[in-house]
Amino acid sequence: MADANRQMVLERLPQGDKLGPQHFRLTESARPTAGEGEVLLRTRYISLDAANRAWMQGATYRSALESGQVMAGGALAEVVESNVGHLEPGDTVFADTGWQDYAVLPGKRLEKLPAMEPVTHLLSIYGVAGLTAYFGLLECGQPKAGETVVVSAAAGSVGSIVGQIAKLRGCRVVGVAGGAEKGRWLVDELGFDAVIDYKAGGLRQQFKEHAPEGIDVYFDNTGGEIFEACLFAMKTFGRIACCGAVSQYDGAAPPHGPRGIPGLIVTKRLTLRGFVVMDFDAQREAALKDLQAWVASGQIKVQEDIIDGLENTPAALIGLLAGENRGKRMVKVR
Amino acid sequence: MADANRQMVLERLPQGDKLGPQHFRLTESARPTAGEGEVLLRTRYISLDAANRAWMQGATYRSALESGQVMAGGALAEVVESNVGHLEPGDTVFADTGWQDYAVLPGKRLEKLPAMEPVTHLLSIYGVAGLTAYFGLLECGQPKAGETVVVSAAAGSVGSIVGQIAKLRGCRVVGVAGGAEKGRWLVDELGFDAVIDYKAGGLRQQFKEHAPEGIDVYFDNTGGEIFEACLFAMKTFGRIACCGAVSQYDGAAPPHGPRGIPGLIVTKRLTLRGFVVMDFDAQREAALKDLQAWVASGQIKVQEDIIDGLENTPAALIGLLAGENRGKRMVKVR
Repeated sequence: MADANRQMVLERLPQGDKLGPQHFRLTESARPTAGEGEVLLRTRYISLDAANRAWMQGATYRSALESGQVMAGGALAEVVESNVGHLEPGDTVFADTGWQDYAVLPGKRLEKLPAMEPVTHLLSIYGVAGLTAYFGLLECGQPKAGETVVVSAAAGSVGSIVGQIAKLRGCRVVGVAGGAEKGRWLVDELGFDAVIDYKAGGLRQQFKEHAPEGIDVYFDNTGGEIFEACLFAMKTFGRIACCGAVSQYDGAAPPHGPRGIPGLIVTKRLTLRGFVVMDFDAQREAALKDLQAWVASGQIKVQEDIIDGLENTPAALIGLLAGENRGKRMVKVR
Repeated sequence: MADANRQMVLERLPQGDKLGPQHFRLTESARPTAGEGEVLLRTRYISLDAANRAWMQGATYRSALESGQVMAGGALAEVVESNVGHLEPGDTVFADTGWQDYAVLPGKRLEKLPAMEPVTHLLSIYGVAGLTAYFGLLECGQPKAGETVVVSAAAGSVGSIVGQIAKLRGCRVVGVAGGAEKGRWLVDELGFDAVIDYKAGGLRQQFKEHAPEGIDVYFDNTGGEIFEACLFAMKTFGRIACCGAVSQYDGAAPPHGPRGIPGLIVTKRLTLRGFVVMDFDAQREAALKDLQAWVASGQIKVQEDIIDGLENTPAALIGLLAGENRGKRMVKVR
């Protein structure tokens, strides 16, 4: 059926349980048509993000997801039909298409992205992941040369870029990641100074070893135990960029928060700042220029983790939540 | 014995238990003499602060206290003998005399305070309490006219000034304090818009009632449950000034921190900043000018809670930790 639109529906919301294949259902409907002011998009690469799971827990910076809807998510998409002046068939946009072959969206807020090879870089380094790393580290973290920067989920789409930018800024960089193999990759390929394996236990001891003078900047992607261990290892006047809490998305909300709050914030005079990438939209062009220069010079290596097929999107997200990806994970739809 | 020096010794450190009279012992030694570069001080008013208790728990911004030492604490004191050029007998200084009649200290870092009537204002509004309120609110909290400011321990030395400065800046001010009587005082005398009684329970409901649109700035003196309730009531882009955690000083360290950390920091894009008043020493003169103008114009009312007699210092601190004071508590020694 050439005009079919495969859709991955969020069959039911997890209720404190781990996300599994049973929460999704692949269905098919007719390909929609663009109405006035709308565009018809064909999904090319769906972005997989821990945030997808957070949206299932309730309202965040967007409203909560509901059972029965097509699973929400951003994607690179190609314009197929356009009823707005600024977009033409063949243009590439980033849009909240959801997990489906086709989506009709209002054209107003969509913008044409530049041609790029590979186009997937628009989802990784020049997309939400790269910009999140850039703004979170540089604006919220304010790292200075010679300081120690720690980033959790270091092998992920954001963490792997945070570490490389911090190196560029002359910092000592310690990643937190699961497993020895990821650790070697971060040190050997991406130039991290050290890696802490959270699966090996003894977090506080590992911090003492690899960040013996304490942490100046902690870029937090995980929350939970790693957050707590970093809090205790922070230096006076340290900064924590709060980007996400992937350790807490897939399951029931934790009954308690990390110890040392707010006591350690006071005695160490810490600054913790939460952010979402769109808070920095006004500075986006300048950030992209920096990122492009760093990629062109080889100072930043872009790692992408591309899985094929819309039908594999649930497994791709479930695996991402378990930490199996390296770099930016996405699903190629077509 | 005219030359005697009464000393309140920290007989033993509390070990997870509540501070009580049994932790102190009044003793007497000979009045010391100033050596080279030193001054002999006669203690006049001892400042009582929740921080006194925090120092017993371990190293903070100062090293931890030890059993057997004279209890540490700041005081207004009069110079009796001076072996430094910039101080003369009769001068008033603020110094870490400890809880005793006389102390010998290096003169180098002491500065002569201006003559003032009443002299106790040098401990309250123009001392650590007033400056802590000023810098914590204005620098860490960054309140704007029309915003909602919440302050805990609102009837205390710092909180009572925070609320009044926030009113001056055109904010809606909600205090958190224990008991209806304190609440009435804050509203009727100090001009707070509303008060939440933490002893009455139902904190979240009370916040919904008195800060229905959410909190823009929370000045935290308490930590614990009040901190958690505020966190959940914060508005997007809200700021939390972390000043102290009096709810957690007098007993065992809490096994857990507040829920919502770091998740709510991210989704609400909060900024939490810990501080200690001396971090702002460079801006002290300008702050004092503002405070003096506000006191002179009657826009800030100064509340002091003065207890007589060195022997009553332990009870004064124990009572302060239980929240029995109103405004700045101090002990008059002579």
